[in-house]
Amino acid sequence: MAVELKNDLLLRALCREPVDRTPVWIMRQAGRYLPEYRATRAEAGSFMDLCQAPELACEVTLQPLRRFDLDAAIIFSDILTIPDAMGLKLYFVAGEGPRFEFPLQSPEDVRRLPRPDIAESLGYVMDAIAVTRRELDGKVPLIGFSGSPWTLATYMIEGGSSKNFSKAKRLIYDQPAVAHELLGKLADTVTAYLNAQIESGAQAVQVFDTWGGALSAAAYEEFSLRYMARIVSGLDRESRGRRVPVILFSKGCNTQLEALAASGCDALGVDWTISLAEARRRVGARVALQGNLDPTVLLADHGAIRREVEATLSSFGPGEGHVFNLGHGITPEVDPEHLGVLVDAVREFSPALHRPR
Amino acid sequence: MAVELKNDLLLRALCREPVDRTPVWIMRQAGRYLPEYRATRAEAGSFMDLCQAPELACEVTLQPLRRFDLDAAIIFSDILTIPDAMGLKLYFVAGEGPRFEFPLQSPEDVRRLPRPDIAESLGYVMDAIAVTRRELDGKVPLIGFSGSPWTLATYMIEGGSSKNFSKAKRLIYDQPAVAHELLGKLADTVTAYLNAQIESGAQAVQVFDTWGGALSAAAYEEFSLRYMARIVSGLDRESRGRRVPVILFSKGCNTQLEALAASGCDALGVDWTISLAEARRRVGARVALQGNLDPTVLLADHGAIRREVEATLSSFGPGEGHVFNLGHGITPEVDPEHLGVLVDAVREFSPALHRPR
Repeated sequence: MAVELKNDLLLRALCREPVDRTPVWIMRQAGRYLPEYRATRAEAGSFMDLCQAPELACEVTLQPLRRFDLDAAIIFSDILTIPDAMGLKLYFVAGEGPRFEFPLQSPEDVRRLPRPDIAESLGYVMDAIAVTRRELDGKVPLIGFSGSPWTLATYMIEGGSSKNFSKAKRLIYDQPAVAHELLGKLADTVTAYLNAQIESGAQAVQVFDTWGGALSAAAYEEFSLRYMARIVSGLDRESRGRRVPVILFSKGCNTQLEALAASGCDALGVDWTISLAEARRRVGARVALQGNLDPTVLLADHGAIRREVEATLSSFGPGEGHVFNLGHGITPEVDPEHLGVLVDAVREFSPALHRPR
Repeated sequence: MAVELKNDLLLRALCREPVDRTPVWIMRQAGRYLPEYRATRAEAGSFMDLCQAPELACEVTLQPLRRFDLDAAIIFSDILTIPDAMGLKLYFVAGEGPRFEFPLQSPEDVRRLPRPDIAESLGYVMDAIAVTRRELDGKVPLIGFSGSPWTLATYMIEGGSSKNFSKAKRLIYDQPAVAHELLGKLADTVTAYLNAQIESGAQAVQVFDTWGGALSAAAYEEFSLRYMARIVSGLDRESRGRRVPVILFSKGCNTQLEALAASGCDALGVDWTISLAEARRRVGARVALQGNLDPTVLLADHGAIRREVEATLSSFGPGEGHVFNLGHGITPEVDPEHLGVLVDAVREFSPALHRPR
């Protein structure tokens, strides 16, 4: 396992070390916008079948790297594998997103919720990571990930996607002790899950707090941020002599950047509703920033994509600590050629714009 | 028309004058959570029939005031009356929200878009305001409103509600000049529309920028904020010897509070993802703040509602310039009794918590 990492731009940028150009990867880069992904997905059967077959998960993880000069791979999986391993039974309804067969419906359900044996119930993720690391052969680093406790809890309580999170919010307001019991169990499980991913070969990890932005500022600190900080402090931050950086991404939580930066993580994902200049002013030198192009820019023409990539790089400005990404996942309707324009533009513009200060 | 205003708490708070207790009104207070609203709505026929019948619009505007000790009425109408008056023909599909029969599909559609004669095409709104002022008889002030140019533009381009605003975003990125032509026409029309509302008796006005938060920071300044500032500067800010305060509410735009406060408006609506303490630190003494309880708190039990009302008032702290409201509209599933608990709690707690400094 002593394969040398040929491109370590991502790891260096996440640790705020100087780089010659800005590394770029794209949230959901292995996804439905790629025809080859749709083909493998059709071959696999269900979405969960695809996640649970290490060779196929590896294949779709590598697909975007064959097309684009990306600086990282992210293991193909789903944020909801943990609740599935806890017995809620995840399935997908076409056009409606994820659902659980057995959502949490009472304090008793929360109390009885098992702490899953990671190796046994989520071994397929570790296998996919190991296979993918072997296939990558040191080309670029591999990112592991999990959903945040709060984000997982919303799906587990609502039974699927939600508009207003009415049930999850009622729980935190009416029965905060039950909510804390649930979030504590989830935080411990996420910690063990990410450590197992690191052990299996993940070289950086990201926690996706997709629904942190649904909470009030006070509730966010109490029910989301606190548990992410607990995860960060429990992670094995070094593997085979190299630091494993941790990225926290709380969508819609830009008013919380300072608090997030104080969590002990290495980098923050930033959505597109704040300029990187402003985000950088707010967090100072404490963390790197990852983002933050509006994903819909990929629907615009080539000139607009290049212009917006340049504006994003300029907004961050010179110096270390930027990883280029979208402000959220790439959407299925994007023409893959447009992503190529983005990746090439980051390569073209960043050496001049992000030169060391 | 020289009826004395018996309760001017709202107008005083919006102008940052001292008040004995914090005024409260609720976005969408005349709405589906009230059985009497659903009855009048059923009687009226379509949603637009209800908007366009001044006596019925007045009736539903007054309904929440009969139940709760609210400090303002807001005229019952819809943010999409302007595009309807421009010929796009608004209709509603049950469970799916607003739709336009003739959405904008080309630059030519934008060029041809008429500047409507407000008195002729939107006279029903002015009539409803005049009738409602008469019926209110000075009990509380009446608020007028409009959608913001950007928010109106999204519906006009997408043809209805949207998840990613793909078409509207493509327009601003690929054809910014066309977008500016559209937004300029809308800003002028909104200005004339709000001035007509003021002329007819609206004592404060609010601009709802419901979808400002979908834009990147740079695009927000160029395509939304700029046009709201143009509206603010074109409004008749005095009527019958009294200032008519202007409230801007850009949902999901808390990173833009400083810029919004510099627009010349009197007050900012604030959603629940930032604490009022932080919002107040950011805007200083330039504007009043309106908000910002998470609407889902109204689904929680009485104790939780009272606790969260108190926390919201405490977060703003002592001194002038707060109007209590939710951070977004009240939702249909709320038990009206819960809103009563909220309104009473604001009356009970605010005299001590918002005492003049």
